[in-house]
Amino acid sequence: MRPNRLREIWGTGKAAINGWLAIPSGFSAETMAHQGWDSLTVDLQHGVVDYQAAVAMFQAISTTDTVPMARVPWLDPGIMMKVLDAGAYAVICPMVNSAEDAELLVKSTKYPPLGGRSFGPIRGLLYGGADYPEHANDTVVGFAMIETRAGLDNLEDILSVPGLDAVYIGPSDLSLALGCRPTFDDVDPPVAEAIDFILAKAKEHGKIAGIHNGTPEAALRRIEKGFRFVTISSDARLMAAGARTVVGTMRAGTST
Amino acid sequence: MRPNRLREIWGTGKAAINGWLAIPSGFSAETMAHQGWDSLTVDLQHGVVDYQAAVAMFQAISTTDTVPMARVPWLDPGIMMKVLDAGAYAVICPMVNSAEDAELLVKSTKYPPLGGRSFGPIRGLLYGGADYPEHANDTVVGFAMIETRAGLDNLEDILSVPGLDAVYIGPSDLSLALGCRPTFDDVDPPVAEAIDFILAKAKEHGKIAGIHNGTPEAALRRIEKGFRFVTISSDARLMAAGARTVVGTMRAGTST
Amino acid sequence: MRPNRLREIWGTGKAAINGWLAIPSGFSAETMAHQGWDSLTVDLQHGVVDYQAAVAMFQAISTTDTVPMARVPWLDPGIMMKVLDAGAYAVICPMVNSAEDAELLVKSTKYPPLGGRSFGPIRGLLYGGADYPEHANDTVVGFAMIETRAGLDNLEDILSVPGLDAVYIGPSDLSLALGCRPTFDDVDPPVAEAIDFILAKAKEHGKIAGIHNGTPEAALRRIEKGFRFVTISSDARLMAAGARTVVGTMRAGTST
Amino acid sequence: MRPNRLREIWGTGKAAINGWLAIPSGFSAETMAHQGWDSLTVDLQHGVVDYQAAVAMFQAISTTDTVPMARVPWLDPGIMMKVLDAGAYAVICPMVNSAEDAELLVKSTKYPPLGGRSFGPIRGLLYGGADYPEHANDTVVGFAMIETRAGLDNLEDILSVPGLDAVYIGPSDLSLALGCRPTFDDVDPPVAEAIDFILAKAKEHGKIAGIHNGTPEAALRRIEKGFRFVTISSDARLMAAGARTVVGTMRAGTST
Amino acid sequence: MRPNRLREIWGTGKAAINGWLAIPSGFSAETMAHQGWDSLTVDLQHGVVDYQAAVAMFQAISTTDTVPMARVPWLDPGIMMKVLDAGAYAVICPMVNSAEDAELLVKSTKYPPLGGRSFGPIRGLLYGGADYPEHANDTVVGFAMIETRAGLDNLEDILSVPGLDAVYIGPSDLSLALGCRPTFDDVDPPVAEAIDFILAKAKEHGKIAGIHNGTPEAALRRIEKGFRFVTISSDARLMAAGARTVVGTMRAGTST
Amino acid sequence: MRPNRLREIWGTGKAAINGWLAIPSGFSAETMAHQGWDSLTVDLQHGVVDYQAAVAMFQAISTTDTVPMARVPWLDPGIMMKVLDAGAYAVICPMVNSAEDAELLVKSTKYPPLGGRSFGPIRGLLYGGADYPEHANDTVVGFAMIETRAGLDNLEDILSVPGLDAVYIGPSDLSLALGCRPTFDDVDPPVAEAIDFILAKAKEHGKIAGIHNGTPEAALRRIEKGFRFVTISSDARLMAAGARTVVGTMRAGTST
Repeated sequence: MRPNRLREIWGTGKAAINGWLAIPSGFSAETMAHQGWDSLTVDLQHGVVDYQAAVAMFQAISTTDTVPMARVPWLDPGIMMKVLDAGAYAVICPMVNSAEDAELLVKSTKYPPLGGRSFGPIRGLLYGGADYPEHANDTVVGFAMIETRAGLDNLEDILSVPGLDAVYIGPSDLSLALGCRPTFDDVDPPVAEAIDFILAKAKEHGKIAGIHNGTPEAALRRIEKGFRFVTISSDARLMAAGARTVVGTMRAGTST
Repeated sequence: MRPNRLREIWGTGKAAINGWLAIPSGFSAETMAHQGWDSLTVDLQHGVVDYQAAVAMFQAISTTDTVPMARVPWLDPGIMMKVLDAGAYAVICPMVNSAEDAELLVKSTKYPPLGGRSFGPIRGLLYGGADYPEHANDTVVGFAMIETRAGLDNLEDILSVPGLDAVYIGPSDLSLALGCRPTFDDVDPPVAEAIDFILAKAKEHGKIAGIHNGTPEAALRRIEKGFRFVTISSDARLMAAGARTVVGTMRAGTST
Repeated sequence: MRPNRLREIWGTGKAAINGWLAIPSGFSAETMAHQGWDSLTVDLQHGVVDYQAAVAMFQAISTTDTVPMARVPWLDPGIMMKVLDAGAYAVICPMVNSAEDAELLVKSTKYPPLGGRSFGPIRGLLYGGADYPEHANDTVVGFAMIETRAGLDNLEDILSVPGLDAVYIGPSDLSLALGCRPTFDDVDPPVAEAIDFILAKAKEHGKIAGIHNGTPEAALRRIEKGFRFVTISSDARLMAAGARTVVGTMRAGTST
Repeated sequence: MRPNRLREIWGTGKAAINGWLAIPSGFSAETMAHQGWDSLTVDLQHGVVDYQAAVAMFQAISTTDTVPMARVPWLDPGIMMKVLDAGAYAVICPMVNSAEDAELLVKSTKYPPLGGRSFGPIRGLLYGGADYPEHANDTVVGFAMIETRAGLDNLEDILSVPGLDAVYIGPSDLSLALGCRPTFDDVDPPVAEAIDFILAKAKEHGKIAGIHNGTPEAALRRIEKGFRFVTISSDARLMAAGARTVVGTMRAGTST
Repeated sequence: MRPNRLREIWGTGKAAINGWLAIPSGFSAETMAHQGWDSLTVDLQHGVVDYQAAVAMFQAISTTDTVPMARVPWLDPGIMMKVLDAGAYAVICPMVNSAEDAELLVKSTKYPPLGGRSFGPIRGLLYGGADYPEHANDTVVGFAMIETRAGLDNLEDILSVPGLDAVYIGPSDLSLALGCRPTFDDVDPPVAEAIDFILAKAKEHGKIAGIHNGTPEAALRRIEKGFRFVTISSDARLMAAGARTVVGTMRAGTST
Repeated sequence: MRPNRLREIWGTGKAAINGWLAIPSGFSAETMAHQGWDSLTVDLQHGVVDYQAAVAMFQAISTTDTVPMARVPWLDPGIMMKVLDAGAYAVICPMVNSAEDAELLVKSTKYPPLGGRSFGPIRGLLYGGADYPEHANDTVVGFAMIETRAGLDNLEDILSVPGLDAVYIGPSDLSLALGCRPTFDDVDPPVAEAIDFILAKAKEHGKIAGIHNGTPEAALRRIEKGFRFVTISSDARLMAAGARTVVGTMRAGTST
């Protein structure tokens, strides 16, 4: 089976650089995949993307050796299994709030006997190879998002669920959950404290910790702290920022 | 009829700032439309976009007051009329090489008696208003691209065609046509000379001249020269450039 | 944040006129949006519409000042959050049968601390404006459909759930639930009684009551009774009715 | 091969009632196909429809015994052959202005030796049956639109082209061509005269004449005159008209 | 209402031959529908298909008298009701593990008073006819997949749920559940035993039993055993197998 | 620039095995691409495929090292340039009937000074690499289809056009052109003679000759004769043939 580059990177003790896709287009996904990201996550939760678009985006990413991933809309076995069948090598699941939630995540992303994933990896076989069934459980990665107060309260239990690979922090939701304003990088002190807590606990349990960032500077600081999977910005944000800069320069240069 | 902001800008002697759309997605188009461009051109020629995607993109642009435009794949009456019917307020037509070509462009974009555009502005009526038929000829803008040696040779004749509104320069094709390497901004001397020639002739004939640019700096220099319509970069280029910068910063910050 | 015209209408004591979209097309949605409805609801439950089509339809509606809404397929947090992120200003949720159901509806449609909506209003920011996060909870409207016997039995509890904005009646399902034949307007007495009961209870709790109608006549009668949100027919029904009339006239006029 | 119901109707001396599809959706097409039209024309010219949507619409129509047709964007062999390959049983081609144009229409819609249609009726075989190749030339119908002054001037020549089956009048374009305002039914006298002329000449040459109408009343009058193929309104127009009536009734009933 | 050919076949004591669709395309679905299958199942679970594609595929199948069916991704009322509203005449639901699961399946696929399906059969009315509401409960078929150890353990309870029509076996998942390698036809002894057990119990309770097969030979053997609904291979598998054979023949014939 | 495997195969004196794609789906294209073909041709002429679907299919093919190709609907510069910009490495153009036609094919597929292809290889750069502009003319292959009597008559002139790479024979159209019934393999004597003639002339001019076949047996015979590019069957045909065999076996095995 084609190895999961994320696990290879983690095996060397390094951090993976993840890009984020909110535009439902195979072409923009392929363009992003040529910019050097270790992995790209198709966001089916807050991105404007559904399953059919995601498949086209996985195909586009698969023209390169960037790892195709997905964030699913919700803790729903149907869609988690569908994105894996379509060749995603990692799944990020939002709002995992309890050990029970984490168990459902594992059940939905691992084959028996570890989990209860239904068999039929239709595009997984094309992308991963004919021995996909034997190695999928050790290749595919499941991330549980810790982003609510319940998630924080039950963190030990969540991290103790067998088969859980990693946790992922959404600083915006975590901020809202703690009564702060939603932001990615310059989080309020209670959020910063919660982030440190999650990271420390993940390390304790030998789990990978990942986090969403607005800028590379924030991502680098977080890697230094011990995060092994960092997302920076997104396709739509990078495009909009570039456009704003261009238009701003033009308006400044033509106003007189 | 809803006025064409391009003509309003030109009426005040200013230049219009145009963005470029190569990603076939209504969402990326809408995101671009919120960044302050005067107009946005859906590129059906070199963009990865066909007509059905273009319609969704026109709708997305129409949620703002940015002017929706299209570049068509070729001097073909069918597609020129279709994008206008779908609400485009301007059409850029590639490789107009002769007066005959320019006449076909006018014929395809203006109603009789000026031209021969077929009647049925199905979304034009929604976007422009019920009096679209009366005012379309004075509102919609047709750009003839001058980008071949034949186009240069026949420039006077092209500019003399009644009903032609504007010319547009694709520096890459013009460079290739003159035996130079394709580029947007730092063109070789023969290309620079040809660009100046086209601009001068357009002014002589009272036509608007537009040009494609890679950077705002180049666009500003060209506005100073007299160009009244400048395109800068594109959705996909801005996204890719932003991503490359992020990934570059991350690689630099994590290598040691 | 762009205000929700539904709330403005309700603030003046009036009723909102809602259209219904079952055809998965941005063009038909835009055409409907130009006919003067206060709001248009994309029906992801019984309409032939999924999320990706819904986004295109929200964009099309957003070219006018008609309010974009969605009915979701089921009481599922994932899709409720996705349609809101895509810019819907109101959500109708089918088969809310208990206080627990209503709480999940509120949790899915309101940000903390009132609810548990996940943060990432990607198109909501474009449509609503940069201050969307601050005002979304007071702007977006959640309708709980009361259309089962359990819903009737638990109506007081449902209406007492904090953060619930409104209820909506599907006369067909309510009829089936009460052992009557499904219809919109000329409902059987037990259904009529149930409708009156729901309306009275909603008023008691200071909640908006809405209902689905087949004809404007029925809708007007229901507004007189106190309904403040009335849907009439749908895109597909209006088209089919118009076509049947045309074909009927033609058959009558040509048969001899 | 499945017979063409249009030819069966014409064989009995009657007129066919044609509906018009401008919404790019298989579902709206199928809904229209259940309303009793003899044929339905997918409008790839002024409708918001491209080829891929048209195929889905042909399939939807093919669930009934309504005849699937297409109007193509322009006199272009590529698209005429593509819609036939996809199962259209008739093609309406805009702006046929000369015998040469009519010959290209015949060449594009009939197999050798009569024409030059390329062989590969991929969906035609599914819809028409295995003997499609033998009978296609006698089954498929090609309509030449007469709607310009040149078309009027060259009408005799056009009607004399071997293999041409029928002519079709677009009153809007014909009106514009004759310096009148575009309309369907209440055309100005010069247009009325031109319509009568086309009809008379078509009869003389034993060709079917068809025409676009806004209302069934106009269509019935034209059938009485001798038109054998009448289009009335369209999917989008019928929907919009129905919606305007509903909203109008609601506004009238609630304003006080 | 249009009768369900599956029930007609079963009424004569015969077995239905079912094809399987994993390619999200109306054209491939229509091509398959012309090959003589009794029914075709659009696979929304492991196929690369979502709801919008499924609708186009149902339409394509409906151009023939093959019965349109769907396998849904998960035991989720929303999607089960949506595929039925879109005209599916049977639903296969994966991983039904308990009587409670089976009750939810019945509730989602049958109207009250038997179930709790919400009313709005928008395309069901087009495909089935105007009396769809009266006859849907007796026409539509719901299959519960028995493919886990829990499903086996609770089989009696599942089969006793009123309104359940049939069971369906996925040999791959059943194999995994029993600690064997996933396969369709040559299953390991424990799986063969479980299959026989399910079949025997289904017969006891007067339910139809169906099963997935890789080859017609396996399917014929299973019909002999008493299965009344057999799936063989899939669109993508048949295409790939054909291609492999062609390429293999070519490589063998050209290597020297 | 990524080399064109077709040219590599031809450089070793061997023949390339080409598959054919008529189903507009990235998933079926990717499945085909994993079966070992040297190249796969997306058929935009007789396949049910338009440009937007073709792009997704090119991406799917690009996940393997099979060469992506396209057959365009017609000798139209717009679509030829668009498929090349989208990354096709070869174009087959139907009905090239004269030297003038062949010159237009060359002009549309080669950059100046050899041709007049417009510059903007948006996906070509991703697929081919940053040096695409320098090497495209020597990498991309243009096939002229010889399939009409005019094509035969003008064969010498066509083959003498500078920049033309190859010819391709569609036996069905050639058969029709010569008054024979359309077929792929067992062509009538005049067609066989014409095929031999084209092959001989192509060899004389040092051009590659390709041909469409129904079966591998026919393809092997034609390779022996000297064809260097053979297409066998298509995705839809292989799928349908497989399905017919399965259903036939099932019907035979269950009838008694």
